[in-house]
Amino acid sequence: MPSYKAPLREYRFLLHEAFNMSQYSELPGFRDAPLDVVDAILDEAAKLAEEVLQPLNQVGDREGCKLANGVVTTPSGFKEAYKTLVEGGWPALVADPAFGGQGLPNALGVLFNEMVSSSNMAFGMYPGLSHGAYSALLHHGTDEQRAMYLPKLVTGEWTGTMNLTEPHCGTDLGLLRTRAVPNGDGSFAITGTKIFISAGEHDLADNILHLVLARTEGAPAGIKGISLFIVPKFLVKEDGSLGERNGVSCGALELKMGIHGNATCVLNYDGAKGWLVGEENKGMRAMFTMMNEARLGVGLQGLSQSEAAYQNALAYAKDRLQGRSLTGPKEADKPADPLLVHPDVRRMLLNAKAFNEGARALLVWTALHGDLSHASDDAKAREFGDDMMALLTPVVKGYLTDRGFANAVEAQQVYGGHGYIEENGLSQFVRDARIAMIYEGANGVQALDLVGRKLAQNGGRGVFGFFKLIDDFVAANTNAKTESFMNALVAARKDLEAATLWFMENALQNPDNAGAGSFDYLQLFGVTSIAFMWAMMAKTAAEKLASGNGDKGFYEAKLKTARYYFERVVPETATHLTRIRVGAAPLMDFSADEF
Amino acid sequence: MPSYKAPLREYRFLLHEAFNMSQYSELPGFRDAPLDVVDAILDEAAKLAEEVLQPLNQVGDREGCKLANGVVTTPSGFKEAYKTLVEGGWPALVADPAFGGQGLPNALGVLFNEMVSSSNMAFGMYPGLSHGAYSALLHHGTDEQRAMYLPKLVTGEWTGTMNLTEPHCGTDLGLLRTRAVPNGDGSFAITGTKIFISAGEHDLADNILHLVLARTEGAPAGIKGISLFIVPKFLVKEDGSLGERNGVSCGALELKMGIHGNATCVLNYDGAKGWLVGEENKGMRAMFTMMNEARLGVGLQGLSQSEAAYQNALAYAKDRLQGRSLTGPKEADKPADPLLVHPDVRRMLLNAKAFNEGARALLVWTALHGDLSHASDDAKAREFGDDMMALLTPVVKGYLTDRGFANAVEAQQVYGGHGYIEENGLSQFVRDARIAMIYEGANGVQALDLVGRKLAQNGGRGVFGFFKLIDDFVAANTNAKTESFMNALVAARKDLEAATLWFMENALQNPDNAGAGSFDYLQLFGVTSIAFMWAMMAKTAAEKLASGNGDKGFYEAKLKTARYYFERVVPETATHLTRIRVGAAPLMDFSADEF
Repeated sequence: MPSYKAPLREYRFLLHEAFNMSQYSELPGFRDAPLDVVDAILDEAAKLAEEVLQPLNQVGDREGCKLANGVVTTPSGFKEAYKTLVEGGWPALVADPAFGGQGLPNALGVLFNEMVSSSNMAFGMYPGLSHGAYSALLHHGTDEQRAMYLPKLVTGEWTGTMNLTEPHCGTDLGLLRTRAVPNGDGSFAITGTKIFISAGEHDLADNILHLVLARTEGAPAGIKGISLFIVPKFLVKEDGSLGERNGVSCGALELKMGIHGNATCVLNYDGAKGWLVGEENKGMRAMFTMMNEARLGVGLQGLSQSEAAYQNALAYAKDRLQGRSLTGPKEADKPADPLLVHPDVRRMLLNAKAFNEGARALLVWTALHGDLSHASDDAKAREFGDDMMALLTPVVKGYLTDRGFANAVEAQQVYGGHGYIEENGLSQFVRDARIAMIYEGANGVQALDLVGRKLAQNGGRGVFGFFKLIDDFVAANTNAKTESFMNALVAARKDLEAATLWFMENALQNPDNAGAGSFDYLQLFGVTSIAFMWAMMAKTAAEKLASGNGDKGFYEAKLKTARYYFERVVPETATHLTRIRVGAAPLMDFSADEF
Repeated sequence: MPSYKAPLREYRFLLHEAFNMSQYSELPGFRDAPLDVVDAILDEAAKLAEEVLQPLNQVGDREGCKLANGVVTTPSGFKEAYKTLVEGGWPALVADPAFGGQGLPNALGVLFNEMVSSSNMAFGMYPGLSHGAYSALLHHGTDEQRAMYLPKLVTGEWTGTMNLTEPHCGTDLGLLRTRAVPNGDGSFAITGTKIFISAGEHDLADNILHLVLARTEGAPAGIKGISLFIVPKFLVKEDGSLGERNGVSCGALELKMGIHGNATCVLNYDGAKGWLVGEENKGMRAMFTMMNEARLGVGLQGLSQSEAAYQNALAYAKDRLQGRSLTGPKEADKPADPLLVHPDVRRMLLNAKAFNEGARALLVWTALHGDLSHASDDAKAREFGDDMMALLTPVVKGYLTDRGFANAVEAQQVYGGHGYIEENGLSQFVRDARIAMIYEGANGVQALDLVGRKLAQNGGRGVFGFFKLIDDFVAANTNAKTESFMNALVAARKDLEAATLWFMENALQNPDNAGAGSFDYLQLFGVTSIAFMWAMMAKTAAEKLASGNGDKGFYEAKLKTARYYFERVVPETATHLTRIRVGAAPLMDFSADEF
């Protein structure tokens, strides 16, 4: 049976030490999150994750969701767990106080979400999707819509969904066919079929708010003719109570590789009543608001499965006696040594550990810059926060899910044959983690977003601002103790810059040069930005050690993990750069028949 | 619905062109396999795979095996398919003619096995395991045992199993507890529990021959006290007919991540009658005979899932219209371009294609050297064949299964969200491929076998012989057309040699230096040996093109694929070497508590 403990010490290290969140204590949101409040929230969230959600993780995988007569039943215990979540006020954590939210920084919110997702990823998607719907309505809804829907989303009494994909189109939403015809009363009749709708129908909440992309009559072809609508499962009366059932129903549940506990629905819209959110034909813009929020949330899913899988593999490696150390028996009184004595087992565990701690830092750092982009009282800091959020969102989504999956696979490998048996839970981590590389924009789309849009935005202000930040950090913090780390960071940053310049020189003349190198560039960016996080964490750990204020073991382990990351992971940047510079020809020279 | 076509043109290219098998036509085995016979066998095998086995692949995954009252029922259609396999005489393909086999080379046998495994991996394991039992009895059984059991294994009327793992031990067989007590009549009473026994119980064959590792009373501790026994499910009478049921039964079926169509059994031995195979306490030696055969067979499973997944992803990429080419519409009359226009989709497909063709070459080349180690009339060639087989077996097992899984994951990625839906079959390729990295010695064990045993064998004769072969090939075949490939091969070979020498210098003083670099060394060896295969294939393709004898498209595609491999895959050797040279310290400096 797998288990999970929230890595609270790691969270405190990031928020209070490495990123020193209290420096922002005068800003909105941060103001309400002094150190002791943050700690209390994290402690309570850990209990929810460990005691309520994690015990349901395998149950959800085994039972899955059931559809009968249009009604979807979630796995045993999910309904009660969701009630506990709502009663605890958790859906309100980072929501706007104007609609009942607690307004706390998302830098804290992502850690709450990591705990939920590590303990039960399929469950976490029900409240997770609501947050996307919340964002779209908050930023694009009318005052009336916000007043009608947001408070219930914020309490969690109602949940939300995102309806983009149709059978013939996913990435290319310009092809979508769902129609919206005016009813004459300000509402529209929505008709069409949406697929892959996570949390599309279930028994956890009183109502479900579907955010749906559709075309109005005579709308321009392609993505310029797409509008966003809100379509409630039950129509909402003026007094806020629920009225009749709307014309949207779950036609089927998908049988998937993983996240069995989440209902992935085919939703049939049959003249369902919907209302425009934002302007007509500007649906993609509104949808992007939801998607960017969601992409950080998917990135953390990758991390969450890596963390959960790592914890279990580590416990197994300490417990399982098998073989002897290559340098002679370490526990001679036992029939064999624990797996942990084997260097290759350590390699698999340390790949995950160094990633988990570094990727979490990147996630929090990115979310923090998202927070500052709204909350800072300094225009430059707001702009910089926005730049970092825009630049790093595809990196967090793509790199954290790619590596998160790979780490879950390596954790499974630590278990040997026992990793392949469903009962031990490692297979579920792998199967659940797999979806995060695909949805919310497949990772290839993230890589293109990074190379094709984010690099060029504002004349490269984001990426060059990121480089300058690294340079300034290195210049200010290089000393005898940190030199080897800083050198490795500088080498990675050089490779990343060289790749960036290569694209700038070669992708305009042939955009396929960008496409051919985009995967490697995203990997290179992921490794380098996490190396930057490790440099910051190592600096903090070294200072703490020098100050002699306790917790020596924690800081020493931090420095050892930094070393592992710099010596064993960072060198791969060279290969990524080499591959990028190869360009498009070896890929594009093939005719379709030559494959 | 997934599909499969056997890559017959590829098979002919390898056997008849790149490796020119007819040069051995005077040798035993090869003598019976002239070109037209080989082609006829491949054609018939392709029909079996495509028409009989592939249609049952998803059925097996969905239904799995059932256990009721000790009886295991395989999925619908498996029994009939197995009958077809037996009636076609396929289990006899590479078996010894003295026991009814056709005695054909294993270089052909591995291609038959690839087709079976690509079309239905779980099914292929039933006859696959029999071959391991066949080998152990052939090489270590008494004349009487061979006469009693081998003919039925060769026809396929009976199947075989390998019983190593127990609940508390897998890799470390020295810990095993199953006991063997003499009955006084030459037989032993076997008692104990074995787990993870593939094809351990089923309804396909009249009898099952279990090859079981156990300890006799007073045997030395550890692996020096292990003996091998044959324990038939039904005792065999002197006239060859089946007698009473033996004391071995299936206690449970494991619920696994994949290969659902194969029965993975807990087998309970309760005083079951068994007979010693080979000498007492020399069971590990006999078992290694089975394991080495089996390891090539598992390596090809990795390739097989990569091939099957690639074929389906390629078809999807040609068919699915989504988005536009970065360089402007390619099929302007359609609503979107096919996925295949996108460089990153090509990257995923070409990673698989270049691997599949190169890995298959390595598999056939290794099997061919295994054949020559027996069949050659030249003592030097027999020794060299033996060296290559020993050296490359862990590479084939470890590298082909690691990459085979990774390619199946990338093929799934090409499908986007549809790849995550079980109906489309990509999830099954990923889930099935996963086990091949684990069983028959987890890949970490293969890497240690390579670094710790195979490098040093006979004073490094194998690895340095391999280098010399590459050098001679490069010297003899470098010209203006091949130069860029040869240079890339030489660079990879240099990295591999540097890593080899680093181990020789640093692993004796600290064996953990070998362990810490073993994974990267196996990857480096895999990339380099496949680069060698690509150099041989490219040379052949270039010659064929120059000769102007038709099939131009095939040879041109071969050269383009070679280019992709050399430019995009081979550069990773540098990172592996860098990681190896880091040594053990960054891994071993952690105390258990510091993880």
